[in-house]
Amino acid sequence: MNNLDSSYDVVGIGNAIVDVISHENEEFLLRHDLVKNSMSLVDEQTALAIYNDMRPAIQTSGGSAANTMAGIASLGASTGYIGKVRNDQLGELFVHDIEAAGVDHLVAPASTGLPTARSMVLVTPDGARTMNTFLGASSTLYTEDIDTEKVATSNFLYCEGYIWDIETTKNTIRLAMSIAKEANRKVSFTLSDTFCVERHHKEWLELVAGPIDVLFGNEAEYLTLSGCNSIEDAVKWVSGQVEIACITEAHNGSTVVTEGQTIDIEAYPVEKVVDSTGAGDLYAAGFLYGLTKQYDFETCGRIGSLAAAEVITQTGARPQSSLAEIVSTTLDL
Amino acid sequence: MNNLDSSYDVVGIGNAIVDVISHENEEFLLRHDLVKNSMSLVDEQTALAIYNDMRPAIQTSGGSAANTMAGIASLGASTGYIGKVRNDQLGELFVHDIEAAGVDHLVAPASTGLPTARSMVLVTPDGARTMNTFLGASSTLYTEDIDTEKVATSNFLYCEGYIWDIETTKNTIRLAMSIAKEANRKVSFTLSDTFCVERHHKEWLELVAGPIDVLFGNEAEYLTLSGCNSIEDAVKWVSGQVEIACITEAHNGSTVVTEGQTIDIEAYPVEKVVDSTGAGDLYAAGFLYGLTKQYDFETCGRIGSLAAAEVITQTGARPQSSLAEIVSTTLDL
Repeated sequence: MNNLDSSYDVVGIGNAIVDVISHENEEFLLRHDLVKNSMSLVDEQTALAIYNDMRPAIQTSGGSAANTMAGIASLGASTGYIGKVRNDQLGELFVHDIEAAGVDHLVAPASTGLPTARSMVLVTPDGARTMNTFLGASSTLYTEDIDTEKVATSNFLYCEGYIWDIETTKNTIRLAMSIAKEANRKVSFTLSDTFCVERHHKEWLELVAGPIDVLFGNEAEYLTLSGCNSIEDAVKWVSGQVEIACITEAHNGSTVVTEGQTIDIEAYPVEKVVDSTGAGDLYAAGFLYGLTKQYDFETCGRIGSLAAAEVITQTGARPQSSLAEIVSTTLDL
Repeated sequence: MNNLDSSYDVVGIGNAIVDVISHENEEFLLRHDLVKNSMSLVDEQTALAIYNDMRPAIQTSGGSAANTMAGIASLGASTGYIGKVRNDQLGELFVHDIEAAGVDHLVAPASTGLPTARSMVLVTPDGARTMNTFLGASSTLYTEDIDTEKVATSNFLYCEGYIWDIETTKNTIRLAMSIAKEANRKVSFTLSDTFCVERHHKEWLELVAGPIDVLFGNEAEYLTLSGCNSIEDAVKWVSGQVEIACITEAHNGSTVVTEGQTIDIEAYPVEKVVDSTGAGDLYAAGFLYGLTKQYDFETCGRIGSLAAAEVITQTGARPQSSLAEIVSTTLDL
């Protein structure tokens, strides 16, 4: 890794999404046949049917990798973001928010085609979030959307699993990963959701055996990916695949697997989970930030846990307070 | 008043606005030459300049009279709302939110012309809100936008001062007021902001001497309207003008002036003011709701205070919890 002459500490790739958040009861999930804590892709019509049944909502920028980049920026590192919006009102607010968070937005909005992506985020009284995403403009990334020079000169590339869907976009991401690897940069990836892992199992095994250096996911996602029956076996399996694997498990903390070593990290206690949206995204933000600072892995994990704890005590998936301040007052770095 | 065969308990008229809310420091207000706690009308370009300098924001439906209607619906009465959006993304979310709040939206979105109105709401650490509003589609209401039958058969008409701006719109509102009066309904009005009172002083004195039965405003607004030097003199003056005048003064509570009688209502104590946006709107909601239930004026004022106290402990100007439940557990009605 070369920290000199780098464009960014981290460049992220993901679906550029506006979150439409409302608090709903469990009945709402049953009525629409939704799986709690999961993300479902929906077409515009289904999105509308769900929206029409939702209570008054708040709109705020989201998108998994975008949340992670906003988190890294809030921690104090430099970030760029590759994610496509349409040139419509929701697109304008997405671009405003990512730039206002201190992240450079690296893709011009599309002037034709589908509208900006939105995700109906249903937060139940237990703080769990159930997401229904209409991908719209965000689903298609072309190779010309990748600023190859910026990717080649940034220390980390980070990609969310959610965006792995359309062939064109997959090839664009493969290109970005190969540019990063050829330039001797690190490639990181998050498994996003078990349904994504199931859907793209074979291709993701290739990515994990290939370009990916740093992998994020929760226990269920690692079990699905590895095909193992126990998390212990999954840990053994993944340690042969990637340089660093982070396995998160909500309030039970996380495990960092690296060089045959396994480090358990406790979750930071929170008084009340208001909205768990963004917990995984912010864990990745904290961990990657730690790596850019070349902290030891335990410290990286602790920063991840702290950032995740902060974001689940508020509504919305991006930190509303300065994570740099929270880290400096909480951790002894 | 005829509670039988009525369309709604209250029909509101106002600017249909999406609030774009961020937390900013005092320096931000200085940098943009903004008067704290006030609302300024801005053109699209100025709105953009302010927006570009704002931190990541949340978008949520607002509009003074719309907030009041949402509050009345949350209290359990029936409401309709006359306020115009454009058929764009922000317009869609406004209409979703007002309907999801249980309020009937009574005006079709415009299919041409300016975009849906938005207000940049800057919340400073003291909880004060400073608003910069681009009125867009909401500023022009035509007489054909008024459902005359619904206005004539609803018990109260409520109009915000903010929307009093363009001649066409003023004439539309005058028409709505005259329809209500001819049908023996009550007309209520809020003074909205001292700058509005200054700007439309002569016309509003005519409205107050004419169709208005119930008037809302804060001390500064009543002083400006009456031209009096003391609030005591303003109280004397207004008691000869309208049937009921409510004078709010933030944490000092409110005064209800009626039939030569003056009733002081205490503010409900709140632990911390998060965002004072909507306090006046929700006071009016509570008071009007009380009137529709034919409670005594002190009770009406207490419901107003309680609704206002609830809304200032959250970000955004519409109640996120059921006001009906809060009232039933707090007040002995």
